[in-house]
Amino acid sequence: MLPAELFHPKSVAVLGASRNPGKVGHGVFANLVRSGFPGEVYGVNPAGGEVLGRSFYRDIGAIPGSVDLGVFVVPPPSVIEAIPLLAGKGMKAAIVISAGFKEIGGEGAVLERALREALSAASVRAVGPNCLGVINTHAKLNASFSAGTPLPGSIAFFSQSGALCTAILDWAVGAGIGFSKVVSLGNKADISELDLMEYLSDDPETRVILGYVESIDEGRRFLQTAREVTSKKPVILLKAGATAAGARAASSHTGCLAGSDRAYSAAFRQGGILRAETVEELCDLALGFAMQPAPPADQLLIVTNAGGPAILAADTAERIGIPLAEVSPELRGRLRATLPPTASLENPVDIIGDARADRYREVLKVVRDDPSAGSVLVLLTPQTMTEPEETARAVLSALSGSGKTVLASFLGEKSVREARTILQNGGIPQYPGPERAVRVLRAMIAYRRIREVGQPGGEEPGGVLPASVAAILRDALSRGMRTLGEEDSRGILESYGFRFPRHVLARTSVEAVAAFEEMGGEAAMKIVSPEILHKTEVGGVRLNLRSSEDVGRAFLEITSSARRMAPRAWITGVSVQEMVTGGRELILGMNRDPQFGPLLMFGLGGIHVEVLQDVVFRVAPVSRREAAEMVREIRAYPLLAGFRGGEPADEESIVEAILCISRLSLDFPQIVELDINPVMVLPKGRGLRAIDCRMSIAEA
Amino acid sequence: MLPAELFHPKSVAVLGASRNPGKVGHGVFANLVRSGFPGEVYGVNPAGGEVLGRSFYRDIGAIPGSVDLGVFVVPPPSVIEAIPLLAGKGMKAAIVISAGFKEIGGEGAVLERALREALSAASVRAVGPNCLGVINTHAKLNASFSAGTPLPGSIAFFSQSGALCTAILDWAVGAGIGFSKVVSLGNKADISELDLMEYLSDDPETRVILGYVESIDEGRRFLQTAREVTSKKPVILLKAGATAAGARAASSHTGCLAGSDRAYSAAFRQGGILRAETVEELCDLALGFAMQPAPPADQLLIVTNAGGPAILAADTAERIGIPLAEVSPELRGRLRATLPPTASLENPVDIIGDARADRYREVLKVVRDDPSAGSVLVLLTPQTMTEPEETARAVLSALSGSGKTVLASFLGEKSVREARTILQNGGIPQYPGPERAVRVLRAMIAYRRIREVGQPGGEEPGGVLPASVAAILRDALSRGMRTLGEEDSRGILESYGFRFPRHVLARTSVEAVAAFEEMGGEAAMKIVSPEILHKTEVGGVRLNLRSSEDVGRAFLEITSSARRMAPRAWITGVSVQEMVTGGRELILGMNRDPQFGPLLMFGLGGIHVEVLQDVVFRVAPVSRREAAEMVREIRAYPLLAGFRGGEPADEESIVEAILCISRLSLDFPQIVELDINPVMVLPKGRGLRAIDCRMSIAEA
Repeated sequence: MLPAELFHPKSVAVLGASRNPGKVGHGVFANLVRSGFPGEVYGVNPAGGEVLGRSFYRDIGAIPGSVDLGVFVVPPPSVIEAIPLLAGKGMKAAIVISAGFKEIGGEGAVLERALREALSAASVRAVGPNCLGVINTHAKLNASFSAGTPLPGSIAFFSQSGALCTAILDWAVGAGIGFSKVVSLGNKADISELDLMEYLSDDPETRVILGYVESIDEGRRFLQTAREVTSKKPVILLKAGATAAGARAASSHTGCLAGSDRAYSAAFRQGGILRAETVEELCDLALGFAMQPAPPADQLLIVTNAGGPAILAADTAERIGIPLAEVSPELRGRLRATLPPTASLENPVDIIGDARADRYREVLKVVRDDPSAGSVLVLLTPQTMTEPEETARAVLSALSGSGKTVLASFLGEKSVREARTILQNGGIPQYPGPERAVRVLRAMIAYRRIREVGQPGGEEPGGVLPASVAAILRDALSRGMRTLGEEDSRGILESYGFRFPRHVLARTSVEAVAAFEEMGGEAAMKIVSPEILHKTEVGGVRLNLRSSEDVGRAFLEITSSARRMAPRAWITGVSVQEMVTGGRELILGMNRDPQFGPLLMFGLGGIHVEVLQDVVFRVAPVSRREAAEMVREIRAYPLLAGFRGGEPADEESIVEAILCISRLSLDFPQIVELDINPVMVLPKGRGLRAIDCRMSIAEA
Repeated sequence: MLPAELFHPKSVAVLGASRNPGKVGHGVFANLVRSGFPGEVYGVNPAGGEVLGRSFYRDIGAIPGSVDLGVFVVPPPSVIEAIPLLAGKGMKAAIVISAGFKEIGGEGAVLERALREALSAASVRAVGPNCLGVINTHAKLNASFSAGTPLPGSIAFFSQSGALCTAILDWAVGAGIGFSKVVSLGNKADISELDLMEYLSDDPETRVILGYVESIDEGRRFLQTAREVTSKKPVILLKAGATAAGARAASSHTGCLAGSDRAYSAAFRQGGILRAETVEELCDLALGFAMQPAPPADQLLIVTNAGGPAILAADTAERIGIPLAEVSPELRGRLRATLPPTASLENPVDIIGDARADRYREVLKVVRDDPSAGSVLVLLTPQTMTEPEETARAVLSALSGSGKTVLASFLGEKSVREARTILQNGGIPQYPGPERAVRVLRAMIAYRRIREVGQPGGEEPGGVLPASVAAILRDALSRGMRTLGEEDSRGILESYGFRFPRHVLARTSVEAVAAFEEMGGEAAMKIVSPEILHKTEVGGVRLNLRSSEDVGRAFLEITSSARRMAPRAWITGVSVQEMVTGGRELILGMNRDPQFGPLLMFGLGGIHVEVLQDVVFRVAPVSRREAAEMVREIRAYPLLAGFRGGEPADEESIVEAILCISRLSLDFPQIVELDINPVMVLPKGRGLRAIDCRMSIAEA
C-alpha cells in the first residue's frame, strides 16, 4: 500500500529549491506554488533565496511545521542524508527527482542501494530516483518539473521514461486532455508500476490507467496484480523493447534486459491488460476509455455524411472483427421518415452530403433508441452545407448518456478544429481518421469481455508433490546430470497423469517378441540406456514393425548397432512400444522466463512449429479456460476441430496436458525446460500419447 | 491524352454561376475569381446577376470570347444541351459538377449515357459528373466548390469520393500542405484515374500522385498504365471496399461492385503502386515522398534526446524490416568528441535530455557525412532544456540537401507546435509519433526498389496458338460442356509443356498389366470416362499398386464398380499411371476477375491452402521475375527451399508452370477457371508432375 501522503500531502518540502529559473529545483518549486496547492510548501536551500514571494529555509531543522511529502532535487548523498531528518518531521512519502543513481552504473548503483536502505529504515515510500516527479491534478499538486500542468481528468499515467512523460503531458496540455495522476517512475528503486496499479485501482478520480514500461521486475506479482486491477478498471500499457532492435536500444538506455516479449505478451493477455503498439494508440485508447462507457453490445452503427470515409470505417471494422449492426425494419422505417430519398438506409447510414446539423440530430435521436447497436461512430466531412460546430453540439445533445459507446471522426482540419474541441469537451472522443476510432472500439469491446468473464488465475501449487518425481530429480541432480532423457522424463510425466504408448522393457529378443505378441498391431523399438540421449544417431530406433520376425531381428540389430556406436554405454535393454496411428502431431513445452517464470508453449508439431511458427504461449499457472484458449488460438486449429469431415481431435485431453505441465512446472522449479515432442493427439474420447520427451534440470 | 485546357485554360465559362452564396454555382465562380486565375472567367446565368463585381452572361451566345474550359453547375439536361454550344466556342475540356446522373440510377444512367455521347461528338474530354471540381494551384485555377484553396505544392490528388476530397483539402489548408493538382473524379463518365495517372506522370509540377479509389473499371489498362507511371513517380492509392463489409458499403454508395480485393492487391503490387491502408497513412506518405528524396540505402539512423521514443522507433523498424545502421568506429569516434559522456553512441544515438539545439546541430552534421545510413530520423521530446524551434532550424541547417531521407518526430503538442511548422516549411516531414515516421520510410524504401528493378509486365500472348487446344475447347463447347475433366484438361496442359506422370490407357486387364510391367515401380489406376468427373465416388481410383497381380485385379474392380455406380456412363478404359513419390504437394490455379482478367494462384497444397490460406495471387501475364516472387512469397517457402536439410524442390519448374498457365489463360479466354491440384514438385532438377486438373470453360 502506498501512503496517502504521496498524492494527498498537507505539507511538502522541496530540498534543492532554487531561485535560478534554469534549475530543476526552481521548476519543481514554482510548479508546486503555481498549481495552487492548498497545503504548506517549504523550499529548502542552504543559500537561502526566494521564489514567487516564498522564502527558502536554510536547513530542514528550520522548517516550522511537519512535512508529509519530501521532494528531492539535491545530489544523491544529500538525498540519503536528508531522509531520516525529514522522516523525523513526519515525512511518509518522497519523490526523488535527482539523477546520478543506478542509471550511471557503478558508484550510482551503490548510492541507489543506500537510498533504498535509508527509505526502508525510515519507513518512507519513494518514487524515483531519476524522474520527472508526480502530479495529482485533483489535489492541485504538481510536484514535478513539467512544463505545464494538465487539466483535472480521469486518466492516470505512469511512465518509466521521463521524456515520454513530458511528451504526453505536453500533448495533454496542448489538446486540453485531463489527467488524474501522472507519475514518472524513474529508476523504480522503491515504488514500481505494481504499487501504482494497485493504488490507482481504488482511486475514485481515475477511470483508466495508462503506462509506459520498458521492463517489469516482479513478473509473477505483476500478473496477479494485473488480474485484480483490470477486474476494476482498464489498464493500457505501451511496452517498449518488444523486438531485438528495440531491446538492444532499451538495454543501452536502462542497463537492464527487458526479458522475452512473448512472456510479456502472454502475461499482459492473462492479466487482462490492453497493449498499445504506439504512443498514438495509447493516447487514442485513453480518450475512449476515459470519456465513454463500454459498448453494451459488439455491433457498430456508422452514421456519415459521405460514402468514402464510411466505407473505410466498415473495412477496418471487418478487418478487426467488429460486426456492423443490422438495420432492423423498424429502424429503417424511422430513418426513412427522417431522411431524404437518396440517403442510404443501410449501415453505414449515409445521410448524404447536404446534411446540416439538424439532420444529424434527428437521425442520431432515432439511432439512440435502437437496441441493435452497442456503439455509434459519427463521421463528418466538411462539405458546402456542413455545419461542423452545430453538428458537434447535435451529436452531444442526441447521444450523451445514451449508454452506447459514441465515438466521432470529423475529417479535415481547418473547418473542423472547433467542432473537434466541442466534441471533446462534451465527452465524445474524436479521432482524425475513422480507422483509429474503430480500433479504439475494438479495445473497448475486448475490455468489456475481460470484465465479463474475469481473468481467474490458474491453480497455484500446494498439494502433495509426487515423491517419485522428487526422487528422480534428486537422484539425477546428485549425479550431476543436467538433462533427463526419455525414460526419466516419462517417469515424471506419468506421475502427473500423462499417457504414453504401451511399452515394455525387453532385455532379450525373446522378451521383445513376447511383448510384441501381447501388444498386437504395429510396434516401435528404442534402445534404453541412461547414457544414450540421441537414440537415432546410434541406430537405436526402429518403427513400423509388423511381425514377430521383424521384432526379433530388430532387437539384435538395435543392440549390436548401439554397442558398436556407443561401446562404453550401459545398455539397459530395448523398449518395445505400441505404434500410435491415426493421431495428429502436437508439441508441448515449457521454459522459464527470468521475469515471469514458467512459460508454457503449445502448437501443432513439425512444420507448424518450425516453419510457420504457429505456437502460443502462456505464463503458468494457467486456468482451464486459459488452457482451452491456447488450443483454439493457433492458426491451424481447424485441423484439430475436425477440418473437412476429419474426426475432431480430443481437445479435452490437450487441455488436461497443458494443465498438467503447468502444475509440474510450478511444483518442481528444478525443471528448467521441458519439451514433449511429438505428442500424438487421438480422435475425441481417445486421449493423447506422448511419444518423446526430455527435460533440462538444475538445482532450484 | 488529356487536353492541356483542362488544367491550363486561358478562359473558363461557368454554366450555372450564381449570386446566391448558398449555391454550389456561387462557390465555384467565387473560387475561380478569388484564386487569382489570370485568364477570363465567364459566369453564365439566364437570370443575370453578378459576383465579386463580375456580371454574368445570360446565355452562351453572349460570351464575348472563346472558351477553353467549361464548368457545369446546371441540371443534367442543360449540361448535355450546352456541350455542343460551348464546343462551338472552342471548349476542349469540361468539368461537370452537377449531380443527378448514374449515381441516382434509372433515368440518371440514361442521362449519363447521353452526356458521354455529347462529349464524344464534340471531342470534349470531361471530369465528372457528380464531383467537386478541379484545382491546379500552379495555374491559380480553382474550378471547384471547395471551402479553401491549398497552397501550391508537389502532391497531386484524385478521388472517387468528393467528400474525401474536401476532407483532404481541408487538412491541407489547415496544415499548410501544398498540392499541385486536385481532381474530384465523380462518376468517371469520361476521364478516369488512368487518364489522370498518365497525365500526372509527365506533369513537371507533380512529384507524388495520391488517389482514393472505390473501383477501377479497366483493370488491364490500369496495370499497364501503373507500370509506366510508377517507373517515373510514386503512386499511392487508398482503395476502399477491401473487405466484404466495406464492399457492401461501397456498393450501396456507388451502385457498382468493387471486384475482388485479392485482384486489386495483386495488380497494385505488379504495377508498383503503394497501397495506403488509412486516410492518415495516405497523407503521411504524401508528405514523405513530396518533401524528401528516396533513401540511398536501407539503413536507418535514429538521433534522439530521450530513450523511450527511440526504443519505440527501433521496435517499429525491426517489425517492418528496416535495418538500423551500424555505428562505425569512425562515426563513434566523431560522436564521442561531440557528445557528453553519458550519451549513447549506439544507434539510436541518444544525445540525452539536456540537449539544446546546438548539440543536435553538431551531431547531425557528423551524421550527415557518414555513409552508413540512408535515412535519419530525428526525435525530440520537449524537456526542460529543450529548444524545439531552434532545434527544428538546426535540423534543417544540418541535414537539408544531405541526399539522405530525413524525417522527424517531435513529440508532444503545445511546446512543439511551432517547431513542427518550421520543419514542414523547411521541407522535413514531421509525424506526431515515431512509429508513423518509420512506416513512411518503409514505403520510401519499397518505392526505391520498385524503381531499381522496374516492373516489366509479363509476355503478352501473340504466338501461334496450339491447334490441339483450340480443337479440344471447340469440341467440348459445341457439346455444351462447361467443365473439362482430367483427360481433356491434361491434353491442354501437355500442349503447353506441362508434365504429367507417365500414363497409359488400358482397355483390358491384360493391357493394364503390360503397361504396369513396362513402367515398373508403383502405379495408380483411374477410370477414364468423359461422363465421370468424380472418379473416387464411383470407386474409380486405386493407388499404390505394386504387383502385376494387384494391377490386374484393380482393373476388374474399377470397371465393375464404375459400371455398377454409373451404369449409363461410357467407359473409355482405365488409365495406368506412374505413382509420383518424394515430391511436395502444390496447387496452381486461375480464375478470371471481372476487372483484371486472369488471376493466377499458387500455394502448397492441402492444409496450406485450405486451413492456413497460405496462397499468393498475380494478374496474368506475369514475368519470370513475378512468377519467382510468387514462389518465394508464401509463408511455407522454407519447405520448398530445403528446410532442415531436406532436398530443395525444383523451384525453376514451378516458375515455368506459373508462366505456362499465365500464357494459357491469355491465349484461351474460353478457359474461365483452371485448377491443377495436386501438383507434385520433385527435388531440384527433376521437374514437377501434375496429378489432377480440371477446367471450367465458356464461349469467349
